[in-house]
Amino acid sequence: MSEGSPFITFLSDYGLNDEFVGICHGVIARRCPQARVIDLTHGIPSCAVSIGAIVLRDAVAFTPPGVHLAVVDPSVGATGAQARRAVALRTEQDRLLVGPDNGLLMPAADRLGGVVEAVDIGASSERLKPVSATFHGRDVFAPVAAALAAGTPLRRVGQPLEARLLRRIELPVATVSGEELHAHVLSVDHFGNVALDAEPVQLEQIGLKAGVRASIEAGAGRPTAMFYGRAFADVQRDELLLYCDSRNMVALAVNEGSAVDVLGLAAGDALTLRRA
Amino acid sequence: MSEGSPFITFLSDYGLNDEFVGICHGVIARRCPQARVIDLTHGIPSCAVSIGAIVLRDAVAFTPPGVHLAVVDPSVGATGAQARRAVALRTEQDRLLVGPDNGLLMPAADRLGGVVEAVDIGASSERLKPVSATFHGRDVFAPVAAALAAGTPLRRVGQPLEARLLRRIELPVATVSGEELHAHVLSVDHFGNVALDAEPVQLEQIGLKAGVRASIEAGAGRPTAMFYGRAFADVQRDELLLYCDSRNMVALAVNEGSAVDVLGLAAGDALTLRRA
Amino acid sequence: MSEGSPFITFLSDYGLNDEFVGICHGVIARRCPQARVIDLTHGIPSCAVSIGAIVLRDAVAFTPPGVHLAVVDPSVGATGAQARRAVALRTEQDRLLVGPDNGLLMPAADRLGGVVEAVDIGASSERLKPVSATFHGRDVFAPVAAALAAGTPLRRVGQPLEARLLRRIELPVATVSGEELHAHVLSVDHFGNVALDAEPVQLEQIGLKAGVRASIEAGAGRPTAMFYGRAFADVQRDELLLYCDSRNMVALAVNEGSAVDVLGLAAGDALTLRRA
Repeated sequence: MSEGSPFITFLSDYGLNDEFVGICHGVIARRCPQARVIDLTHGIPSCAVSIGAIVLRDAVAFTPPGVHLAVVDPSVGATGAQARRAVALRTEQDRLLVGPDNGLLMPAADRLGGVVEAVDIGASSERLKPVSATFHGRDVFAPVAAALAAGTPLRRVGQPLEARLLRRIELPVATVSGEELHAHVLSVDHFGNVALDAEPVQLEQIGLKAGVRASIEAGAGRPTAMFYGRAFADVQRDELLLYCDSRNMVALAVNEGSAVDVLGLAAGDALTLRRA
Repeated sequence: MSEGSPFITFLSDYGLNDEFVGICHGVIARRCPQARVIDLTHGIPSCAVSIGAIVLRDAVAFTPPGVHLAVVDPSVGATGAQARRAVALRTEQDRLLVGPDNGLLMPAADRLGGVVEAVDIGASSERLKPVSATFHGRDVFAPVAAALAAGTPLRRVGQPLEARLLRRIELPVATVSGEELHAHVLSVDHFGNVALDAEPVQLEQIGLKAGVRASIEAGAGRPTAMFYGRAFADVQRDELLLYCDSRNMVALAVNEGSAVDVLGLAAGDALTLRRA
Repeated sequence: MSEGSPFITFLSDYGLNDEFVGICHGVIARRCPQARVIDLTHGIPSCAVSIGAIVLRDAVAFTPPGVHLAVVDPSVGATGAQARRAVALRTEQDRLLVGPDNGLLMPAADRLGGVVEAVDIGASSERLKPVSATFHGRDVFAPVAAALAAGTPLRRVGQPLEARLLRRIELPVATVSGEELHAHVLSVDHFGNVALDAEPVQLEQIGLKAGVRASIEAGAGRPTAMFYGRAFADVQRDELLLYCDSRNMVALAVNEGSAVDVLGLAAGDALTLRRA
């Protein structure tokens, strides 16, 4: 932990309309008053574990060391076959991750050098009592994150767990086939910019370089041509742009407009990209 | 106040799209730079004093001791018959509450053991000058909350007020009639989960136990049957569930879906629950 | 800088659904862990530099001294003719402003006494590497703001720039013509209250005083009469009100309702006000 106040980053699908996030902040402040919480985002689409995993993975490089609390947890409170573990992990770079064991944490853990220690916190003595069946963010994850931020060793907040048992999910990935790149809509941001599950190197593989025009076909629609540029202003206002976004993913935008409105896409939609 | 930085929790119907909340944070930081503000929620529906009162009441147990600032204030700036007092209260457990005297604060005050001291802050020397007619969060409530967080005694921020004069509101409450529970939609959260004004004990009174099926009738619609479970995963994906939520209220959900979309309900709607 | 933790206020059009704001908080915390960030608002309409400029100008009086980070930046990453500078400014009252040089910062700078020192931070050594083409909030503005909060002198974070070269924009302003006030819709808040680009003194100029009725005509619609009052409760519930809002702009509201829904207005719409 850093020499000053410890940091906890917090990512969830709780949204900001309700008191869920505020309550978790309260729980953290009661257990570790000196902790400082950085809300990475609470706008992960409901139950979208993959998107949460990608956002968390790409965010950790930009945050201070400390505890990374993440909750996208469709199986909260489930028992039997649907049950998922609650876990806390320590990575190579001495970062700590806390959340459900549904794959949400693993891409970030890998990015941080891999898991070196793991505990099951489902019966942690740090939990609030009684534990609700629907709000483990408040009752399990936030108190454990706060305990870790307060300096409690990982082995004291849960039962040892073999790292190889941690659940992983397959993240969506685009594929190159000849001169075509088959991609999917990963997420759409506040500006209407559309992030795809494709990496810039895959554009090179189909012969697309910045400065040329690309053709994009979605579903049964006619192909749309657009410039492959670098910055929004590389095209005229209201024109479409293919570019590499700040997470280094291939993305679509409209300069001072909304690509998602123009193209009528939604998360999960399939797209084919080629040279125009 | 705690030995470290004092905490101020903040709840309002200001939303987060505008600068209202940020301005109040600025005002607090000017008056009490060491205060730390926990935003409980700013998503209380506009002017919904009852919902704000319930959320605040149920949140205080999860926050650190300190000052609880709450602003849901449809009568802000009113004079004459419509006028409401602005107040600051101290409760049995030495918590402090600041907000309009329209019933918003009292359920929380009761939960904290009751009011032991009250002051009218409508003419507080801590107010910003000039006081606007429409933004007392900035001009009255935030500066008084900050002064209290800075250690100013309650009697110094306003004029003494008898606690029995504080205004109370009746919170909506479900009623049992024979084998029927007559309830109302209290609020709908970000996930589309529907909280009712009913308590779990009222389900028992009509013979409903976890594990059986319930029948729910809304308005002139046909009754809908659903499982009374504990966790979302107790039903299949996209199926309806009756459950007790993390505030310990009776609620309706759809596993990985939106109950409010499926049922077409809105806040205030009447519902009848019985055994299926 | 203040003797305690330095403050950074942060305003943008990033919204809160994505991780953009959280990432900037992370970047700030890495560079200046002791800094405290006050989120003024991230709800400025996308690319609306003028609205951002007005909100920032009107907010600075209510925040502690420190660094004011603001990002509404449609030309981010542009090169050549579309390029805009990235700047950091020091004002008369020793406040620091950081953001794009597109006019966003100047009304606030003027309000704080004017610019006394300016630097171009487009090639600042404080930038993150590599600098993306689309997220200078993360890569340029947040790290420079954090460096300034940490006490780095302005001249060390960029190249000197003559203040007269800083770009200014014309803010929308209402005009009086005889007994008519020609105004525009500036912005609409969370409550549906409609702020105009008119100042209270302009109402006086057309003979409108609080307590009388005004007539407002929008587009081709019929004139709507409404009371010119002080507080929302000066009219009955669901009735329209003309008033001066907490930023001291002329505004329209509906008591416990939404003026924008009743009047069907949008930002930029022209209105004519006169005595009824």
